[in-house]
Amino acid sequence: MLSEFSLIDRYFARRARANTRRAALGIGDDCALIAPAAGEMLAVSTDMLVEGRHFFPDIDPHALGHKALAVNLSDLAAMGAQPLGFTLAFALPRPEEDWLAAFSAGLFELADRFGCELIGGDTTAGPLNLCLTIFGSVPPGAALRRDAAQAGDDIWISGTPGDARAGLGMMRGDWPIRQMTQMSGEDAAHLRRALEYPEPRVALGLALRGVAHAALDVSDGLAGDLRHILQRSNLAATIDVDALPRSPALARLPRDVQLQCALAGGDDYELCFTAAPARRQAVEAAAQQAGARVTRIGTMNSLTSPRAAPEIAWRDAAGTPLTLTLQGFDHFHAD
Amino acid sequence: MLSEFSLIDRYFARRARANTRRAALGIGDDCALIAPAAGEMLAVSTDMLVEGRHFFPDIDPHALGHKALAVNLSDLAAMGAQPLGFTLAFALPRPEEDWLAAFSAGLFELADRFGCELIGGDTTAGPLNLCLTIFGSVPPGAALRRDAAQAGDDIWISGTPGDARAGLGMMRGDWPIRQMTQMSGEDAAHLRRALEYPEPRVALGLALRGVAHAALDVSDGLAGDLRHILQRSNLAATIDVDALPRSPALARLPRDVQLQCALAGGDDYELCFTAAPARRQAVEAAAQQAGARVTRIGTMNSLTSPRAAPEIAWRDAAGTPLTLTLQGFDHFHAD
Repeated sequence: MLSEFSLIDRYFARRARANTRRAALGIGDDCALIAPAAGEMLAVSTDMLVEGRHFFPDIDPHALGHKALAVNLSDLAAMGAQPLGFTLAFALPRPEEDWLAAFSAGLFELADRFGCELIGGDTTAGPLNLCLTIFGSVPPGAALRRDAAQAGDDIWISGTPGDARAGLGMMRGDWPIRQMTQMSGEDAAHLRRALEYPEPRVALGLALRGVAHAALDVSDGLAGDLRHILQRSNLAATIDVDALPRSPALARLPRDVQLQCALAGGDDYELCFTAAPARRQAVEAAAQQAGARVTRIGTMNSLTSPRAAPEIAWRDAAGTPLTLTLQGFDHFHAD
Repeated sequence: MLSEFSLIDRYFARRARANTRRAALGIGDDCALIAPAAGEMLAVSTDMLVEGRHFFPDIDPHALGHKALAVNLSDLAAMGAQPLGFTLAFALPRPEEDWLAAFSAGLFELADRFGCELIGGDTTAGPLNLCLTIFGSVPPGAALRRDAAQAGDDIWISGTPGDARAGLGMMRGDWPIRQMTQMSGEDAAHLRRALEYPEPRVALGLALRGVAHAALDVSDGLAGDLRHILQRSNLAATIDVDALPRSPALARLPRDVQLQCALAGGDDYELCFTAAPARRQAVEAAAQQAGARVTRIGTMNSLTSPRAAPEIAWRDAAGTPLTLTLQGFDHFHAD
């Protein structure tokens, strides 16, 4: 439990011990003790981040600390859960003070913003690997589940998906440089920030309790992730690709790149959710309360036959069917 | 969430979905939902296992599946917590069916024995790394905490500590072969099994609720781990090294190797706990109920002065002080 290196104790364990409020017992015993609010369930999610696959070897450790927690907070957001705490296990080739200081700063800045405390952990020597398990509290009936979408529901997306994938493409040089040179420094910084400092939509997830039916966070690309809702809710979907919100920075890229990023690009951690058309005002009010932008991009449909595949039909603003060849954005390695 | 490789889905996710009882919502959504029993706390522990450090690269994957869960169940045992479920995150260089079949068999055989369900996970490509986070249920006042030892308490140990370290030494050739050749095939199998298939003392931990004061599981060696109780309870200890229970297999090794293994060897996952002398019969009854052997090996003492270090005094059966030079068994790399 975070005891093997004094440097690690310095940056993580002492801080965690000093800050522990929600956990009855934190770092320093065999287990941490935690409880959801009375009558609520504990929502649990775990993510492992590996160098070269989920982040570049030369990533700013402050950004890595942020992102490691952000992707887990995003899973709570997608469930409508209130963050409580997290455990952090990591393997490091060797403890380096500068690296640990920056990583822990990025991690705890985000943790503090969401009142999410480090309650336990493990450290070991090995190739760089981070494993976070996060805990939140949610009333059982209020959880935004993937299997709860209804035929006729609107499909909504938060933020401007595609920015993180565009930031990755920009940093990695995926597209001809002449397409990128039309981009201002401000735009480039926006895309890079979308990749390195994703903002988990926790407040939106909480505000959507009782308003949205189904929700998930878009980590692997909208086209691929929306299918999880379709499969589990046994429905099909129609998406108006022209309705997809695009940031000014993304909008400077060629249209096919925009679509590829917005539909198949991952790592944005925006919420995709469904709600009844009668709740449009409630959705807008929830978004306003949460300080998030939300956009209606399509409709959930009944399957044409009981054995039909739960597929997505793509349309443009005029309703013309589009054929898109999209591959799921499988983190860094697949493309 | 275990969706990236169909092989992994086959060995983990489907099984988990079919078996989910305690979790209200298991694999397949953004979070799993779990709750402790009414009025109880959730005990949480996380451990990361890295190839070359926590296990040999050529370890039998069945044994690895067992051990990865066993070390986490042992943390629950040391808290007196009832196992509920666990998440599994792992990085694999590539999914290999034979390996996954054997690993998952070892994992689920142990999980089924303790009614501990896989409720969520994550898989990724990368150097072999396993991260388990385990959940148990415990009444807040009944948890066996490290800071609850009392001056005058007896110190107890379960099982025969040292066997796992002797098994490691045997497999790695730490000691001259002529010392090992006195060992029967049966003894060698016992030591190897202690290393590869540690038995988490869950039933003992539960039976010790309300009987023991402090407890922990010995993962890094009795001498080093007992210090955690001393530091957190602000006490000293006296240990009678001749009282240490030794298996017939360990007893065939030279006395200094026996002591080194029993006091500084890790990976046994036996429980070390303290209880009032008035509760000796209750401790014996708890051990009998749990089917575990327990042995009284020492006493907790008040510090000689408020600023004295919480140290361990080693004695032999005649009460003669011993000077032992023990290094904490720091998994594979330190020795």
